[in-house]
Amino acid sequence: MKGEPYLFLPGPTPVPERVCRAMNRPMINHRGDEFKDILEDVVAGIKQIYRTRANVLIYPASGTGGLEAAVVNFISPGDQVLAVSIGVFGDRFAMIASNFGAVVEKMDFSWGTGADPQKIKERLAQDTDHQIKAVLITQNETSTGAYNDVKAVREAMGDHPALLMVDAVSGLAAIELRMDEWKLDVVISGSQKAFMIPPGLSFMAFSDRAYQVHKSNTNTSYYWNVDQGMEYQLKGQTPFTPPISLYFGLHEALQMMAEEGLDNVIARHTAYRDLVRASLRALGLKLLTEDRYASAAVTSVIAPPEIGANQIRKYMFDQFNIILAGGQQSLDNVVFRVGHLGYIRELDLLSVLAALEITLLHFKFPLELGTGLKIAQKAIFDMHQQ
Amino acid sequence: MKGEPYLFLPGPTPVPERVCRAMNRPMINHRGDEFKDILEDVVAGIKQIYRTRANVLIYPASGTGGLEAAVVNFISPGDQVLAVSIGVFGDRFAMIASNFGAVVEKMDFSWGTGADPQKIKERLAQDTDHQIKAVLITQNETSTGAYNDVKAVREAMGDHPALLMVDAVSGLAAIELRMDEWKLDVVISGSQKAFMIPPGLSFMAFSDRAYQVHKSNTNTSYYWNVDQGMEYQLKGQTPFTPPISLYFGLHEALQMMAEEGLDNVIARHTAYRDLVRASLRALGLKLLTEDRYASAAVTSVIAPPEIGANQIRKYMFDQFNIILAGGQQSLDNVVFRVGHLGYIRELDLLSVLAALEITLLHFKFPLELGTGLKIAQKAIFDMHQQ
Repeated sequence: MKGEPYLFLPGPTPVPERVCRAMNRPMINHRGDEFKDILEDVVAGIKQIYRTRANVLIYPASGTGGLEAAVVNFISPGDQVLAVSIGVFGDRFAMIASNFGAVVEKMDFSWGTGADPQKIKERLAQDTDHQIKAVLITQNETSTGAYNDVKAVREAMGDHPALLMVDAVSGLAAIELRMDEWKLDVVISGSQKAFMIPPGLSFMAFSDRAYQVHKSNTNTSYYWNVDQGMEYQLKGQTPFTPPISLYFGLHEALQMMAEEGLDNVIARHTAYRDLVRASLRALGLKLLTEDRYASAAVTSVIAPPEIGANQIRKYMFDQFNIILAGGQQSLDNVVFRVGHLGYIRELDLLSVLAALEITLLHFKFPLELGTGLKIAQKAIFDMHQQ
Repeated sequence: MKGEPYLFLPGPTPVPERVCRAMNRPMINHRGDEFKDILEDVVAGIKQIYRTRANVLIYPASGTGGLEAAVVNFISPGDQVLAVSIGVFGDRFAMIASNFGAVVEKMDFSWGTGADPQKIKERLAQDTDHQIKAVLITQNETSTGAYNDVKAVREAMGDHPALLMVDAVSGLAAIELRMDEWKLDVVISGSQKAFMIPPGLSFMAFSDRAYQVHKSNTNTSYYWNVDQGMEYQLKGQTPFTPPISLYFGLHEALQMMAEEGLDNVIARHTAYRDLVRASLRALGLKLLTEDRYASAAVTSVIAPPEIGANQIRKYMFDQFNIILAGGQQSLDNVVFRVGHLGYIRELDLLSVLAALEITLLHFKFPLELGTGLKIAQKAIFDMHQQ
């Protein structure tokens, strides 16, 4: 019996039954009081997840839409921008800025590592006349499973006035982020990650400082325009028809996150990361990222080259209905990625690890069944002894 | 994060998402064409599961209702009945017959074992003037996890004319049953077991021979009356308002069973039983039933007395949201029962086994984590190599 799929992707992540049920109801008027109440609740809830008192807008868009919203509202054509990239999504953020007329200077780091804040500090120190208007950075690089220490990057920027714009689409609520305390200017996230709802909503928070910059912004925008967004939000509405069922789901998911407690949510993701990495290493597998850069949202595993990542993924799908992500671009067939963010129960990690061992053994990879599984089980035991 | 519960009960069993979705729709007219089509489909589907061409009625009732239907339609007050019991549900079947005026002779076997067909043969051989009108037997005794070899019991009855009435509520589709080939007269089952839908429907098939007996039945019945049931079924209806959403679910579940194939469904349950038993034994746990009686639907595990079954169940529920059944009557706190029938994915068996090991270790039971888990994982590996 194949049964329901096990979704171990870095997004979309499994949607809890509570959220499914919440979404499964007829539409309401998005210009009415009931929607207004929901909107106020979810904006307040998102602010708690961002740990911010700044403005938050919700876009009917995928995460990439949120990145575009950040660019068109806070970067003007001709602005010089330092785009730090550690993978596919860092490249994408840079590309969007470039498309909208920014003069983009890429600062690349090897895939699988995080950015070196010292390098950013040195570059900004050279920019004595403050031509660089914004630094773009990815909190969690989904393509590699590495994350950037956003707090250290902010500190490295010192008194340089450039805005720090953070793509936190796949990292928020899985990896610590404190927007106000760390003085981040623009932070974007998405619904289909740790927020545990389907794709379709993107969230953008922006500081007062960012809003001051926006005032003299010369980019053209309509859909993403923050003034219009804020104006409607004050009335308890959105400028354009919102995906109402996703709001129902978000409302419920934020409630679940509040019940668990944000600190516990973050700690859970960290514990899952450590468990998965220890288990995979016990099998003799190599991981793409070193521990110090390791994402709590997704782990990239270097497949034994004689087997290949895609053959592993295919067998796990065919035999166990387990869905893993593949490698992107140069990492295609080199790595497979195990998502462990959002609504994943700890015991379900045993399923993916057990099935992976079975798969590797099937392809004659030398291992003893249970080797990694036992490590994971012990980690779960320890969690429950605390 | 607690998440959705893991339901490892011998019923209700987990309801697949496909079935939930099928049930989640508005009501239709139960006297209309759409319901007629569904009724015809599900009756045909149930007959395939029973491996019968006999009549099948669907009652809006729990399994016990089906047992009562069998008694009131095919046993008359004053009839002598041989009620074979190997546990709580065997006792219940006898009690119902007794309540409706049958002269019940109990034949009890130790809890945890199956009935000895030879004993039944000997008893019927003494009944030379055929006073015994029916033999009642439980296919799968949910309270102990033992099953009866119904085919052997039928063979043991030889030419004795008593009807063989089988409570197959928790066993059907988990354990082989061939109504026509084995010449069974009345077979009852329920919706919340291997049929993978919520409780609320009971199925009863009866042979032509049983129907002949029914013609002279002197019990009073209205709700359970088979003549009325058959009369309405010919029109594509039920005598009383049916639980329509359960019919939607049943329709989908039968489709899923057809896709998997009944032989595969049975084989899956057998494989799960063997996997669970081997894993539990590797931990040093004792099982209530010997292998030859072991049910493919549920396994009764004797808890280490110094811990107690209920403390194990409580910890597994509190810590892992895993729901196991307790022991009934004299087995309370002595055994816990792991249901492995219906919609259970093989990898989910690893979850319950891993969590059980963690629980036992928590209560200082001497074991090495992973001992049973590894056995189960190897069994899953082997299944996929075939």
